[in-house]
Formats: sequence, C-alpha cells, structure tokens
Amino acid sequence: MMPMNQQDFKNKLAQHESAIQSALDSILTLTPQTGETTRPRSLIEAMRHGALNGGKRLRPILMLETAALFDAQNEGIMQAACALECVHCYSLIHDDLPAMDDDDLRRGKPTVHKAYNEAEAILAGDALLTLAFDLMAQDITHKSAEVRINLVRGLAQASGLGGMAGGQSLDLSLSGNDINPDDVVQMQTMKTGALIRYACEAGAIIANASNEDQQRLRKFGEIMGLAFQLKDDLLDQTSDAKTLGKAVQKDADKGKATFIRLQGMEDTQSQAHALLEKGKGLLQPFGEKADMLLAIAQYIIERKQ
Amino acid sequence: MMPMNQQDFKNKLAQHESAIQSALDSILTLTPQTGETTRPRSLIEAMRHGALNGGKRLRPILMLETAALFDAQNEGIMQAACALECVHCYSLIHDDLPAMDDDDLRRGKPTVHKAYNEAEAILAGDALLTLAFDLMAQDITHKSAEVRINLVRGLAQASGLGGMAGGQSLDLSLSGNDINPDDVVQMQTMKTGALIRYACEAGAIIANASNEDQQRLRKFGEIMGLAFQLKDDLLDQTSDAKTLGKAVQKDADKGKATFIRLQGMEDTQSQAHALLEKGKGLLQPFGEKADMLLAIAQYIIERKQ
Repeated sequence: MMPMNQQDFKNKLAQHESAIQSALDSILTLTPQTGETTRPRSLIEAMRHGALNGGKRLRPILMLETAALFDAQNEGIMQAACALECVHCYSLIHDDLPAMDDDDLRRGKPTVHKAYNEAEAILAGDALLTLAFDLMAQDITHKSAEVRINLVRGLAQASGLGGMAGGQSLDLSLSGNDINPDDVVQMQTMKTGALIRYACEAGAIIANASNEDQQRLRKFGEIMGLAFQLKDDLLDQTSDAKTLGKAVQKDADKGKATFIRLQGMEDTQSQAHALLEKGKGLLQPFGEKADMLLAIAQYIIERKQ
Repeated sequence: MMPMNQQDFKNKLAQHESAIQSALDSILTLTPQTGETTRPRSLIEAMRHGALNGGKRLRPILMLETAALFDAQNEGIMQAACALECVHCYSLIHDDLPAMDDDDLRRGKPTVHKAYNEAEAILAGDALLTLAFDLMAQDITHKSAEVRINLVRGLAQASGLGGMAGGQSLDLSLSGNDINPDDVVQMQTMKTGALIRYACEAGAIIANASNEDQQRLRKFGEIMGLAFQLKDDLLDQTSDAKTLGKAVQKDADKGKATFIRLQGMEDTQSQAHALLEKGKGLLQPFGEKADMLLAIAQYIIERKQ
C-alpha cells in the first residue's frame, strides 16, 4: 500500500460523488417504475431534497471501494451503494425533525421539514428507507437471490432497533448526568457505527468475497465507524458552523453523550489515530488495491467537515 | 363455497388474532437477537405499544388464509404475516403524529406519541418498518431465497413511494376543493389498497402457488383493499367514537378526499357490495378451502368498526 497523492485522492472522491449523485438522480425520478402507477410530486421533491444535497457519500463510497478490492464494479454495486445512501439520508431527515434534534440547517441548506413541512419530511424519510429495500432486492443488484437476501438482511440489521434506530433511541435517553463510558460506546456503535460497518461488509458480500475476507472488511468497517464518530465529536467541539454546514457545539451544550465529554480532546484524538493504524493493518493483504480505502480512512480522521 | 356460521367465523378470527399477538410478542422481545448487542428498552416499549394493542390483524390474517388455500401453514408464514403487520403498525404510528393526522386515540388507547413522546414514536415507526424487512429476509420465512426476495420486493413496493407512503403524501395534498374522482381512487389504492393487495398476493407467493393463482389472489386483494376503504369512509360517517375507538367524521370535517364526498353514501354502499360479489367469483375455484376468506370479505364490508 502507498499513501495516495492528495490530488489523485480528491479527483477519485469527486468521481465517486458525481457517479453516486447521478445514479441517485435517476433513481429518484418522477417517472413511475415497474409496478407503480404514479409517484407523488411533492414526496419525490422532498426525497430529492434530502438525498441529492451533496453529502460526503462516505457510506456508498466505502461500499464501492471495498467491492473494488475484489475487482468488482458494475451497475448492481452502484445500485446497492445508492440503497445504502438512501438509508443514511432517511436517518438525517428524521434526526433533523423538531421532535428529534430540531435542526434547521443541513450541509448549509434548510433541512427537509424546513424546506417542505414536517409531514412531508416524515414521509420522505419513510419512503427513502422503504426504497432502499426495494433497490437492494431488485434483480439488477446481484444475479444471486441468496446474495441479495444477505444484503437486505444486513441492511435491516444495521439500520433497525439493534443498529441505527436503536442507537438514536439510546442517544435520546443518554443525555444528562451519570453517563457510563460503555453506554456511550454502545450507543455510538449502533447509531453511526453499524451503517459504516455494513458499508464495508456489504462491499465484500456483493463482490462474492470469501467468508474470511467478509469478516476482515466487517472489522475494518467497525473501526472506521468508531473513528468517524470520534472525529465527529472533535469537529463539533473545534469547528465553526460555516465550515461544518450545521450548528456546532450543540451536542456539548445539550449535555449529550460524546467521547470528548467522556475522555477529553487529547485522548479522543489519539484513539482516532490508533484506529487508523489498526485499519491499515487490516487492509495490508490487499496491497495497492487498498490505496484508495486507506486514503479514505485517513480522510475520515483528518477531515475538516 | 359455503357461508360460514358466524360463531365459527368469530372463533377462527380470535384464534388467528391470538396466534399473531403471541408471535409479535415474542418478536418484540427485549432480548437481543443474533447480530444484536442490545435492544433499547424505551424503543421496544414504544414498538410494543404500537404493535400489540389489539388491532383487527386483517392484513396478516389475509396472508395466512390466502396461503391456507394452498394448504400452506408453518412458522415461516406466521413470521411473514408478522412482518406485514409491523409495516401496518408503523404506518399507524406515523399517521397519528401531530404533523400528520394528529390523533390522540387509536383503538381507544393513547397513540404512541401520547403514551411516550414524538421522538420515540418516530423511531418506533422507523424500527418497525426496518424490522419487517429483517423478518421477511430471515431463512425461517421460506427455504428459498428467491421466494424471500420476492416477498421483500413486493413489501417494499406496496409500502413505499408508489404504494402506502406515496398514497399518504397524495392524501395530504388532496384536501380542499377541486377533487378529481380518479385522484381519490388512485390515492386510496396506494394508501390502503396496496398493502391489503400485497397481503393476499404474498400469501400465494409464500405458498408456492402458480403464477396464475398469484395473479388471481393479487386481484382478490386489490378488490378487498378498495372495499375496505369504502367501508372505512362509511364508518367515519355513520359510526360513533366509542364503537370505532377513534375520532369520527374527522375526514369529512377536514374536507378530505373520501368516497362519500365523491359519490354519496348510497353509491358507496352498493359499490362495496358489488366488490364483494366480484371477490366471491375469484375465490370460486378454491371451493370450501375459501370459506374463511369469503367470510373475511363479508366482514370487511359489514364490520361495525
């Protein structure tokens, strides 16, 4: 493995982002698809607002690059990557709702319930989540029904009550005093970690990787999920709203369970770097094919937003 | 086919209800399942409140009885039926939210956001929807991955932007004047019809029925979905809150797009009866095995709540 030239890395990221944006754009079309008679304009518009507003696309890019370790690259993998991104976008729409985090801004733009209304935002989230399973189950995703059902099951587990939704519920109940460090790790592993872990594992599954490699990439994904959250907590503390495109120090102000609060800035920083080294070790066997994944891992803990 | 004795029908319904209740009860347990480290108590409680409060269980019963036409009955079918009911319950939880229909009562009890809070209600709905796909994808549901992926895809289509969620969005935009009859039918077909249609179609799919029989049951489900909504509109007009367990005349008061508003009580009533006859015709080839399904069809348009 070689450290990637920064310009090459940026170009590759931009290439991925634009390919994902264009795939999501054609998925979220007003034109009814097979089995549908119509697609309601206001719902599609709210879904597009939530899904096409230029996020980092970290999860689908991780899936695409993990699959690329095994030389797998086709429109089915792009469709699965978009399904995963739909789940991520649904979670942001619902998290931003007044009853949840009550955020007006997301990536510098009005959140879906601000741009439309709460009812449409709830439905747009619901419909993106449902669409994810539709996309994942379609023949085009992978020729084997067995592989598709594994992808569906894994996605449901990573995003459901034992994963992301459960983590969000734990987060709601963890604000206040008497926060136990293990509970914070548990909550973050479920809330943010599970879907990032799944991104890497799913890339290996869809590429027909061996069970051993699937496990290795699952582990790599787990590490990346935790590193991502550590960095998120650091950014919430040190960045400003303009750079971040959303309000800062909100978590700390609300007495939320963050890693900073638990172990301070310095330990959080060095834990993130230790995770990067661990991730690097896991990618070693893939040689130069893992250059991009390694660069992404570096980006996860060095990003400014 | 023979009209069923009312007592036998009631007993059979009660049997189904209790079997479904007990299956949902063990699915919605606090004990973490394979691949989960914990299940957050408050989330599980909110999910249980929304899913175990004694609904009619019409959709899972339709699935079980449709599968029974082909002599199929096993724990996998019960699991698929529960998955379907989870989707129905999620939709009720989200529909009741303040930003949507703003209902305080559901089946005579506080709605989930009243009993808990809005954030937990949104998450409980999200987690029930996600759990549905997890359940449907599990090996136990059906030995063939091909069948399971068909069930997953059908469920996603029936409940997503071209089905239930899309119908709910159309409903939000159809209040007011200038309502076109075709738009009402389209909205109702998506909002309520799609999931009832799927219940019947999925019963045939999971029972390995021929394509012809799958089509026939899909058609029967379509008819039942429409009949169900006609009757719902009639009940909203003629019943009282105590019998119905929820507020009445809300739809009419809000200027919502109902069949009554469109074509009056009498025509709605006779259309429902015509649909029953059509449904009966479709069940004819199954002889006495369809006695229960026929009785359910009758119940759908003669129920008091």
